[in-house]
Amino acid sequence: MNGSITLAEAFKNCKHPVVGHGKRNVRVLLDALAGTDGNEESDMYGKGETIERFQAKMAAYLGKPDAVFFPSGTMAQQIALRIHCDETGKRKVAYHPLSHLEIHEEDGLKELHRIETVRLADRDRLIRLDDVRLLDEDVACLLLELPQREIGGQLPPYAELEEMSAYCRGRGIRLHLDGARLFEILPYYDKSAAQICALFDSVYVSFYKGLGGVAGAILTGEPTLTARSKVWKRRHGGDLISLYPYVISSDYYFDRRIGKMAQYYAEAKSLAEMYNDCAHTIRTVPKAPVSNLFHVHSDLPKEVLESMLADVCEATDIGLASWVKALDDGGSAYEVSIGDRYAAVPIERLREAFAMLREKLLAYSA
Amino acid sequence: MNGSITLAEAFKNCKHPVVGHGKRNVRVLLDALAGTDGNEESDMYGKGETIERFQAKMAAYLGKPDAVFFPSGTMAQQIALRIHCDETGKRKVAYHPLSHLEIHEEDGLKELHRIETVRLADRDRLIRLDDVRLLDEDVACLLLELPQREIGGQLPPYAELEEMSAYCRGRGIRLHLDGARLFEILPYYDKSAAQICALFDSVYVSFYKGLGGVAGAILTGEPTLTARSKVWKRRHGGDLISLYPYVISSDYYFDRRIGKMAQYYAEAKSLAEMYNDCAHTIRTVPKAPVSNLFHVHSDLPKEVLESMLADVCEATDIGLASWVKALDDGGSAYEVSIGDRYAAVPIERLREAFAMLREKLLAYSA
Repeated sequence: MNGSITLAEAFKNCKHPVVGHGKRNVRVLLDALAGTDGNEESDMYGKGETIERFQAKMAAYLGKPDAVFFPSGTMAQQIALRIHCDETGKRKVAYHPLSHLEIHEEDGLKELHRIETVRLADRDRLIRLDDVRLLDEDVACLLLELPQREIGGQLPPYAELEEMSAYCRGRGIRLHLDGARLFEILPYYDKSAAQICALFDSVYVSFYKGLGGVAGAILTGEPTLTARSKVWKRRHGGDLISLYPYVISSDYYFDRRIGKMAQYYAEAKSLAEMYNDCAHTIRTVPKAPVSNLFHVHSDLPKEVLESMLADVCEATDIGLASWVKALDDGGSAYEVSIGDRYAAVPIERLREAFAMLREKLLAYSA
Repeated sequence: MNGSITLAEAFKNCKHPVVGHGKRNVRVLLDALAGTDGNEESDMYGKGETIERFQAKMAAYLGKPDAVFFPSGTMAQQIALRIHCDETGKRKVAYHPLSHLEIHEEDGLKELHRIETVRLADRDRLIRLDDVRLLDEDVACLLLELPQREIGGQLPPYAELEEMSAYCRGRGIRLHLDGARLFEILPYYDKSAAQICALFDSVYVSFYKGLGGVAGAILTGEPTLTARSKVWKRRHGGDLISLYPYVISSDYYFDRRIGKMAQYYAEAKSLAEMYNDCAHTIRTVPKAPVSNLFHVHSDLPKEVLESMLADVCEATDIGLASWVKALDDGGSAYEVSIGDRYAAVPIERLREAFAMLREKLLAYSA
């Protein structure tokens, strides 16, 4: 362990990064624009052929009557929850303690919309049917994130999801899907997006996670909700004169990668197996991934694991991760998200990297 | 007057449109990206070389210590006003009755930020020093829009602007500049952007009006304000993973057109003269433009003027306007905004168009 190079640098320079689709550079946009001659007209404040055609396409794919394109999921989800609150006359929504809205949005929902929140379930596990049964009837809406990203991308059994939906509908509690990674879980559930969305009153999907686009989101639901969401989109400052850079790239990467979700999922399972077979001080959460995503947890301090991964990366040119975060229990963790890059990684070289990592892990715990 | 073609269609098909820079199509983005090899890294949630370099460039140009790039002015301005309210402990802002915030934003400022508003001055005239002197001290911030777009782009004398600024500073009232068209008024005031901005506590500028970019805005001010604005940008859902399509195009069109504002202004003045010399039933507001922008008012009903302009457009291939709106007094009006196209219009053909318009106007009022 020379410690002379950081993990981020080693990852950036290596020949075989294992995670992601590729570099997030301007090429991502240029590729999406390569097929256009430039004569396509800009959308104008949410109107125009390009944006309306894509919204209709996504509404059909998600099995809902209407859809609205947003610059971000942060904006789309706050607005969906606000509308559910206004329509039900309630001021409270429930979500997981590690929901994106709770930990990544500077409390926009509370600060801008004055909506109270109920954190359902514990931080380190999924929301289950028994949790949902505890909800008071003053809750306007329950937000479910499928898969639950911050705990490694976990999912409830599909039958339980159906029960949760039925329970909420019986109690007048709206159900919103944070589908930031909805496309990525379709192979595991073996359902269409429309089947899953039918369980929810509103759904947000993203175009830059598994699909690898530039940015952008779709909110879909009943026409009353989508019509109201356009008014709130204007209020939030998201009704830009031109959203076409995001619309065109979202459409392009949707077509290019929607058919590859089963491949990413299979690759994630096989990579997770390598981690779980590596050494007793390292494991994946969940053990068997249910999408292209999982987390790697280790008993080692962050700096030690970082240094090991940097050394493995330099020695084998295999980039397993670009960052490691410390856990409260003294261990460490990082996220693995499979994209186009994985298929190009030479399997022998990958085995070498895991053999070297195993050696280091065993030496450390000896 | 055949009435067989709409004004919008005639304008779209004509050889010599007089207003604007060009079609708002994907070519606008492609031109801005033509110089990039694609290896430039994306910004990531507001961080990264491309966005930070452009923010620093605009802060320097506007003479302020810091600047933040926003997807829209709607978002940037609500946030600036919210911060002024929070910092002063007041809940009220003042602006013109036809401010963008009052008529184009679905009351976002009130609905999201619960800020009360004072509409200063009358709808059809500028805010003057005497109006500002009427402000109560419970007003956190006065927003001035320079030029005042909805009344044809008018400006107060510069000395009076300095007096307004001094008055507000003496009373603890913050001053915010809606500089959507700030670049466009620099030749008339014969001041630098930094000189004008020095009179204000915060300034918003836009990149798709006179500059003709794709979308995007800058908010500039003291570092406490810009730091707080980033938190609110996240809350609004404007802190996108990638804003580079707007950043790169804003930078490109700023460089390409910032030096042409004096030309657009001169062209606007000469076109306004042609209108004012045309017939007594048509005139410009203001009579002498102070930027690239002015409004054309007529005594004729909207449909009559529309039909005349469509006929002139078909007969001469000169597109003077693409739309006309009805006024409350039975007359009609439209906006003229000079951009790159004007210089390419054959002057003889333009004179022909005005001669034909004059004939029609005189025949109508006879």
